[in-house]
Amino acid sequence: MGSDTSAQDQTVSEAGEFGLIQRVTSGRAQPAATLLGPGDDAAVLAASDGRVVATTDVLVEQVHFRLAWSTPHQVGRKAVAVNLSDLAAMGAVPTGLLVGLGCPPETPTSVIDELSAGMWEEAQRVGAGLIGGDMVSAPALTISITALGDLQGRTPVTRSGACPGDVVAVAGRLGWAAAGLAVLGRGFRSPVAVVGAQRVPEPPYAAGPLAADAGATSMIDTSDGLLADLGHIAEASQVGIDLRDELIEVPQRLTEVASALGADARHWVLTGGEDQALAATFPPDQPLPEGWRAVGAVVEGSGVTVDGATYEGSSGWEHWR
Amino acid sequence: MGSDTSAQDQTVSEAGEFGLIQRVTSGRAQPAATLLGPGDDAAVLAASDGRVVATTDVLVEQVHFRLAWSTPHQVGRKAVAVNLSDLAAMGAVPTGLLVGLGCPPETPTSVIDELSAGMWEEAQRVGAGLIGGDMVSAPALTISITALGDLQGRTPVTRSGACPGDVVAVAGRLGWAAAGLAVLGRGFRSPVAVVGAQRVPEPPYAAGPLAADAGATSMIDTSDGLLADLGHIAEASQVGIDLRDELIEVPQRLTEVASALGADARHWVLTGGEDQALAATFPPDQPLPEGWRAVGAVVEGSGVTVDGATYEGSSGWEHWR
Repeated sequence: MGSDTSAQDQTVSEAGEFGLIQRVTSGRAQPAATLLGPGDDAAVLAASDGRVVATTDVLVEQVHFRLAWSTPHQVGRKAVAVNLSDLAAMGAVPTGLLVGLGCPPETPTSVIDELSAGMWEEAQRVGAGLIGGDMVSAPALTISITALGDLQGRTPVTRSGACPGDVVAVAGRLGWAAAGLAVLGRGFRSPVAVVGAQRVPEPPYAAGPLAADAGATSMIDTSDGLLADLGHIAEASQVGIDLRDELIEVPQRLTEVASALGADARHWVLTGGEDQALAATFPPDQPLPEGWRAVGAVVEGSGVTVDGATYEGSSGWEHWR
Repeated sequence: MGSDTSAQDQTVSEAGEFGLIQRVTSGRAQPAATLLGPGDDAAVLAASDGRVVATTDVLVEQVHFRLAWSTPHQVGRKAVAVNLSDLAAMGAVPTGLLVGLGCPPETPTSVIDELSAGMWEEAQRVGAGLIGGDMVSAPALTISITALGDLQGRTPVTRSGACPGDVVAVAGRLGWAAAGLAVLGRGFRSPVAVVGAQRVPEPPYAAGPLAADAGATSMIDTSDGLLADLGHIAEASQVGIDLRDELIEVPQRLTEVASALGADARHWVLTGGEDQALAATFPPDQPLPEGWRAVGAVVEGSGVTVDGATYEGSSGWEHWR
């Protein structure tokens, strides 16, 4: 490493593993739940509920994100968001995150700095800390995050408790990330509203614990798309789910974008993933909690239908498929 | 996928993400601490202590392991072992593991089957379960594991509590994995004892909680090598550490292997990583717990010496360096 290389211009190879860890962790304020933060063999996190909720999601460059389309800061936020929304879908509040980061030796340290700043920003939106991690050499930028959460006394809401007669409801945006992906895929960079939604989701974090408090019988985050993820609930609960077409809101903005691209906005809403909305089922005849809107009902049978009919078209994302 | 393709011959691309997850998780018995296992948005793990200990380690093919040198089963065991030893080094008992797995689409499913069997085997040695995970497409086989553990009321043993006068002690094997790496690097496959140590470490899991119970003032697992990891303790505790050469055991087997290769067995013991031994400091004038042996003392000052002198030679492994 030349003596004229400033800290900003360094590659991760020049900074070294320990220097990088220092850059990512130093000067960051940890929330009260972090009893012991980064820098030791392991972190210690409060789990006053006597249980801990845990989930892992891995994002790989060129598979889950492109640095030509998103800044490292946006990728960092998204990597954290997709994990936090899994906690919300159980009815839990996030407490801590561990980050396993792999990157090629020639990666500029500025990429790691921005990535970690994005992670911290998203984590701090929900009061969670980055409590630990690992940094290794890898052929592609690989971000493996484990998110830990606190149920605060709630019963975890699984995918398997939906009963015929329950109301099916959603919280958060649907179809926006798919619209953004379609725009980016055609080489455009706007409208910003949909492109931004593809770059960084806005999961309705608070809606998860609210749904659990309201007695939600099942819940999932819609990372694979509404129909596909409701299909997971239907399968796990051994029920059918029938959406009512008139309740499926197609935002005017998505209709405009679809019109410009010759695409179908309703298809984005029903099948687009990556918005990290929440879908849940609730007992009938009671008000839905704040932020939730009804889209259908749980029925006897199996599978997911719209107004009683099978929806034609792709229904979700599966790796290697 | 052709109808004549048996389940054994499939690639991960043919099996698909959900089929793979099914293969890895189905039919496995979860320990009592697993309140909700794989298959939902997140897992729920008991944390009756009111705290959870958490650590992440990432292993990448060609960086941390080679499938030419190790079977997928051995890689699975090692990937779990390096994480579990971090928990032991805090004084915790492992309870659950989450696995983020990336692999190329052409990877045979048999590799994933063996890898997960190895992970389960190592986890079950300590009574922990694989409680969750994620599987994605990636350019190289990438294994990111988060291990969660229970302190069972113990005070976590950090790296920063060593005091001048404390006894420095180690538990577990030292130098064996480095000897194995030297053997494999020269194209040999034996002696099995050292090659096996490189493929699968045997961390002294029980020695960690025993050390915590015995009042250890600091502890670390020796993933980077004894001198390097004691250096981390010295730095965090703002003390020096002086090893006594006569207390450094060099096993006869390592001396034989070193002699055959023209290498230095003592160097392997002092600097070789990947054995996942434990090193700790204890208050003086009390018996060491079972499995621990004294190797030196904590002194005023800084850095790590052997009989008062700086050890010449490489002192550990750092990524991208």
